[in-house]
Amino acid sequence: MSFIHVSPESHFPIQNLPYGVFSTGDNDQPRIGVAIGDQILDLSVVGHLFDGPILKKKQNVFKKKSLNKFMGLGREAWKEARNTLKFLLSSDQPVLRDDASLRTKAFVPQDQAQMHVPAKIGDYTDFYSSKNHAYNVGVMFRGPDNALMPNWTHLPVGYHGRSSSVVISGTPIHRPSGQIRPDESQPPIFSTCKLFDFELEMAFFTGPATNLGEAVPIDKAQDHIFGAVMMNDWSARDIQKWEYVPLGPFLSKNLGTSISPWVVTMDALQPFLVDNTEQDPEPLPYLNHKDNFNFDIDLEVTLKGDEMSTPAVISKSNFKYMYWTMKQQLTHHTVTGCNLNPGDLMGSGTISGPTPDSYGSMLELCWKGTKLVDLGNGITRRFLQDGDEVTFTGHCQGEGYKIGFGTCTGKVLPAIPTEQIKK
Amino acid sequence: MSFIHVSPESHFPIQNLPYGVFSTGDNDQPRIGVAIGDQILDLSVVGHLFDGPILKKKQNVFKKKSLNKFMGLGREAWKEARNTLKFLLSSDQPVLRDDASLRTKAFVPQDQAQMHVPAKIGDYTDFYSSKNHAYNVGVMFRGPDNALMPNWTHLPVGYHGRSSSVVISGTPIHRPSGQIRPDESQPPIFSTCKLFDFELEMAFFTGPATNLGEAVPIDKAQDHIFGAVMMNDWSARDIQKWEYVPLGPFLSKNLGTSISPWVVTMDALQPFLVDNTEQDPEPLPYLNHKDNFNFDIDLEVTLKGDEMSTPAVISKSNFKYMYWTMKQQLTHHTVTGCNLNPGDLMGSGTISGPTPDSYGSMLELCWKGTKLVDLGNGITRRFLQDGDEVTFTGHCQGEGYKIGFGTCTGKVLPAIPTEQIKK
Ligand SMILES: [Ca+2]
Ligand SMILES: [Ca+2]
Ligand SMILES: [Mg+2]
Ligand SMILES: [Mg+2]
Ligand code: NI
Repeated sequence: MSFIHVSPESHFPIQNLPYGVFSTGDNDQPRIGVAIGDQILDLSVVGHLFDGPILKKKQNVFKKKSLNKFMGLGREAWKEARNTLKFLLSSDQPVLRDDASLRTKAFVPQDQAQMHVPAKIGDYTDFYSSKNHAYNVGVMFRGPDNALMPNWTHLPVGYHGRSSSVVISGTPIHRPSGQIRPDESQPPIFSTCKLFDFELEMAFFTGPATNLGEAVPIDKAQDHIFGAVMMNDWSARDIQKWEYVPLGPFLSKNLGTSISPWVVTMDALQPFLVDNTEQDPEPLPYLNHKDNFNFDIDLEVTLKGDEMSTPAVISKSNFKYMYWTMKQQLTHHTVTGCNLNPGDLMGSGTISGPTPDSYGSMLELCWKGTKLVDLGNGITRRFLQDGDEVTFTGHCQGEGYKIGFGTCTGKVLPAIPTEQIKK
Repeated sequence: MSFIHVSPESHFPIQNLPYGVFSTGDNDQPRIGVAIGDQILDLSVVGHLFDGPILKKKQNVFKKKSLNKFMGLGREAWKEARNTLKFLLSSDQPVLRDDASLRTKAFVPQDQAQMHVPAKIGDYTDFYSSKNHAYNVGVMFRGPDNALMPNWTHLPVGYHGRSSSVVISGTPIHRPSGQIRPDESQPPIFSTCKLFDFELEMAFFTGPATNLGEAVPIDKAQDHIFGAVMMNDWSARDIQKWEYVPLGPFLSKNLGTSISPWVVTMDALQPFLVDNTEQDPEPLPYLNHKDNFNFDIDLEVTLKGDEMSTPAVISKSNFKYMYWTMKQQLTHHTVTGCNLNPGDLMGSGTISGPTPDSYGSMLELCWKGTKLVDLGNGITRRFLQDGDEVTFTGHCQGEGYKIGFGTCTGKVLPAIPTEQIKK
């Protein structure tokens, strides 16, 4: 228990302690904080209290504007920081609790904070690791017999994304314009996107750097996985369809990718380990690990149109539906020698469950436009409309507490008028 | 003319003035320099002499460890810097010429400098804009009738690459290991790459940042193009073939990408503008520009195996063979709203000319392994062997001078033993 009041429904009890970067009206300098209840503990104020054997000489990492340096310290340092935070916030420890002056400086209400992207993301990669999602998309575009590509069950398919356009939850996203070819007997046209979509994903931030040329063996992969966030990989389906052969999705994805602000550590997620998804065929030895690294994280998607007074739940999924684990993703990413840096972001791919109410994109929920998604009160959607607000929430349910991810939200704004770009 | 001696064969006369980042044995701090003859003018020493209307308040950009801040200032600042450099280095200006003490501090011989990646590359994108290359690869894999994908002549196809593994010329590259499927009737195997290749490319660095959601119109694209380097996009063809459907090349490319150290500015390249490649069909208006933005840059590739005493020329190509211009690439990149940052790197794609002696990869030179590439003295290659050193040189030929790019070189090291990764 913490001396900070935490309601039973809070995503941020003392068992969680996720890291984020925030600023406030009276101090616009971004700084590192930890969520506890509805408060933020400002680590730029209490960094000097991290006096364990590793961190006492590394307290400068808590003075930074991003989490990269802290992420780069590695698992032992992360554990030590977590223990110090538990100690400092514990209801029976006076250090912070009874120092009124320090408490005033050290805590900021979350509703007075502006959150920022928590790390300077050097590289962002997106995987495609939910079998249900890959199968659904494959069925729609190639039929059930060729739904999964031959490589899909042998390796975690992934691609490089655009790191500059990763934005923090709450950032509105303009409907994109670009090249589409709605009529395949005609040349392509320039148009606003007609099939705008979200993708329900999670993503992890990486830890210590590796050297070019050196692969991370699967039994060391966890040393490089710091923690996780929720991610919305906004997607322009019509632009994607026309552009993606043969080099993959490009402009259909780089228009913006939203992440939730609080990075939940792997230590906080540890109690929610569940069996890995059975993999058939067995992966090659470099990708094979027997220990569980799959997590029971409930995910929910709501959509609120401008014409709606309350959001409608449109999907309930779970991170445990992943086929490939984060360890397999990370090891695969480095197997040809690609080097990692602290703060790289690696997305899961759209997380669809086995049933239609657990699909992680409008593309699947409306089954390529053939079905209406019911939002209640006679309101329906196929793809996203201007004004639609898409919100993800996620949490692990413990006994009497939640390890939560907060929300990842974003509103679709109308396309920017294109007279200028079209000339 | 400069008071610094420049031989007629030098790539770096006073008409060039490319920017780079270097360090030296007695000062290991990376700093910005300009190549002149066989010397480097150290801008961290002479930054205070940039006293034009824009730069006199921005001299701090020359004290940085990378070119990003300078790149972010924009075209007027770049022009002013070039004028100041021409003035300072001119044979009839005493400011530097006659200040023996300043000259001693300000010039470093290039052969005493270690070059570094000139900008902190936030995002690296690779295009696929040589029609000859796209056609050759298409013929090899799909036959002449379906060689070019339907989208290829309508937009500059591109994809996001890995920025962490962009390295400076001279960095050796280990042969990668990974998943390949040499026998399609059998499961894939873990193996060292058997079909290791180079790709002859050029790449440009971007200028001022743009905002998420805002496209750069084609008539403003040049404002965001700072200058160019040569680039070797090392490629593992067997890994690529197995992994790339449907999300594009990933591990087959992120093992390392080498760039030449000197960024040649667009102002220096201006005299070598040539007609754009004729585009049929005419691009959509947002991609259409009538002014020339194609450049006559001779490119040459040599290969030197361990068993050879001198390198053999294996390809002579030219940047003018590009189908899509850099302006079209940049505008297309932003059309859905992707934001740019100073120091983003955008590669051209492999630059193959129309004839077999101008192809820009071993894949094309050995025509998918069906032909031997002759290196002289009975030595041949299909793909790259361990110990092979691949070197690009590039220059524009002016009247009595060259605007050169120096070299982009890298040696293939044997694969790192894989016992550890295979377990
Ligand atoms: Ca995705
Ligand atoms: Ca390439
Ligand atoms: Mg995205
Ligand atoms: Mg590369
Ligand atoms: Ni090495």
